[in-house]
Amino acid sequence: MTAGYYAAVDWGTSSFRLWLIGEDGAVLAERRSAEGMTTAARTGFHAVLDGHLAAVSAPAHLPIIICGMAGARQGWREAGYLETPATLGAIAGNAIAVPDVDRDIRILPGLAQRDDRHPDVMRGEETQLLGAAGMLDDGRHLVCMPGTHSKWVRLSGQTVDGFSTFMTGELFEVISKHTILSHAVAEADAIAADSAAFAEAVTRARERPALTTNLLFSVRAGQLLHGLSAADAKARLSGTLIGLEIAGALASAGSVDGICLVGSGRLGALYRSALESQGLTVRVVDADEAVRAGLSAAAQAIWPL
Amino acid sequence: MTAGYYAAVDWGTSSFRLWLIGEDGAVLAERRSAEGMTTAARTGFHAVLDGHLAAVSAPAHLPIIICGMAGARQGWREAGYLETPATLGAIAGNAIAVPDVDRDIRILPGLAQRDDRHPDVMRGEETQLLGAAGMLDDGRHLVCMPGTHSKWVRLSGQTVDGFSTFMTGELFEVISKHTILSHAVAEADAIAADSAAFAEAVTRARERPALTTNLLFSVRAGQLLHGLSAADAKARLSGTLIGLEIAGALASAGSVDGICLVGSGRLGALYRSALESQGLTVRVVDADEAVRAGLSAAAQAIWPL
Repeated sequence: MTAGYYAAVDWGTSSFRLWLIGEDGAVLAERRSAEGMTTAARTGFHAVLDGHLAAVSAPAHLPIIICGMAGARQGWREAGYLETPATLGAIAGNAIAVPDVDRDIRILPGLAQRDDRHPDVMRGEETQLLGAAGMLDDGRHLVCMPGTHSKWVRLSGQTVDGFSTFMTGELFEVISKHTILSHAVAEADAIAADSAAFAEAVTRARERPALTTNLLFSVRAGQLLHGLSAADAKARLSGTLIGLEIAGALASAGSVDGICLVGSGRLGALYRSALESQGLTVRVVDADEAVRAGLSAAAQAIWPL
Repeated sequence: MTAGYYAAVDWGTSSFRLWLIGEDGAVLAERRSAEGMTTAARTGFHAVLDGHLAAVSAPAHLPIIICGMAGARQGWREAGYLETPATLGAIAGNAIAVPDVDRDIRILPGLAQRDDRHPDVMRGEETQLLGAAGMLDDGRHLVCMPGTHSKWVRLSGQTVDGFSTFMTGELFEVISKHTILSHAVAEADAIAADSAAFAEAVTRARERPALTTNLLFSVRAGQLLHGLSAADAKARLSGTLIGLEIAGALASAGSVDGICLVGSGRLGALYRSALESQGLTVRVVDADEAVRAGLSAAAQAIWPL
């Protein structure tokens, strides 16, 4: 077994993931928990991190590289933002060190687009992007990172030209839970990536985005008048919101050489299916691999062997 | 004082309104409460109604005309739907009588559009529409009825050709309460109808509806990066959703002779401002007057003097 080189942490709003990385780049151990920023802000970031480091028997002076919401104003220590257009190589150089701790802990900055008409921010996705960019050629890519707040990034080689956030995942969540559609979708299982109702909803919202909230209500009306099933109702809700996102992202993307989808699991499969249903060819990069590659690139820049 | 002729009730999901009407059409008494369908389904529709009738000293055999969610499946007694295209005159004729009660109580039906691609339903607004139609000429009108679920109706004389529901009000509510934007808008007062941020948001969403959920996230980013005020954040959230609704409603309306806005209070003023900001001329009908006029037209058809 190689010695530990560093630990990499992806610290989101509601999730915590840690990888212990060896000098040869191998993953020696992994931890996942629900102690995201929201939980850690109450119980203490240092305590949460120490607990996981102890669980993987990390050496006392192992350095730690962190990305995500731990660097938000309401996180552990504010890590600020790099401004677009931004070079991905500048991420590591702008990491901040957590003071008054007994090891070297760095938190990576987010990205900000200080544009009067299109202000936008990301925190965590810049590190996925850094990792994904290492797997792409130097052309102009449109990078889709689906999630609670989906990010669509215009990338030229290693430069982020700009990006747009769409509140798709969060809207799906609150509409499913808190609106009249909650009854329609309550009993449904996870959406199948090959659902015909999903693909149809993606197409209709992409073709007529102005009708989005009408398409959403028609899920309820379809259930009342045509006995629409819970599975199809949920697929249509999701497809409508993702179709709207795709319409908006492509409309503001300009010309690109290709689309890269940084996703994993069910959500990645659903976005891939949505994009392909629109005749788009996508290069898929696993989101977990991308964030680990990004943390690794930053760690090697900060602590060269 | 004239004798009571009938009592008219607008029984919504979360509100109850009753007017005691004299033989000359005058309003003799009025009651308003929060005992909408949701509450009455627990405490009993009959008991709620009797309480309000006693409070206005209604005669023992006074007939009662009701519109709204009391006629839903989960209401007092299901009143079914008239199907589009529908003549407004048919509403009264399709009222159902509540059985096993000691007075003549009728509940008006809703409207349903049994269209595979555009299924839609309304319940309560058909009565507003019946009242508003009596104040319009016989041309082709696009009637906007803003609310939790805004209705846009294509009306030719007394015939409803079709309609579309937009979930604008409900989305505004859940986004304000349950998403990341809740922090941005929490401290804001009611939106001023002449808010520049509101009008700008209406225009941007109408021009680029595909960007809706990006425009919503930019409210959060604008607060983080540019110190956007809570008042402007709330105005932009509302303006974005209303602009999206207007874009969709006009796109599917076809050619009309005029737009009629059936609204009242703050929401009516906001929609009027939004429509006028888009260069549209609107005839405004007060929503309270419209529903009373509709209930009155139905009552006179059922119980002619």
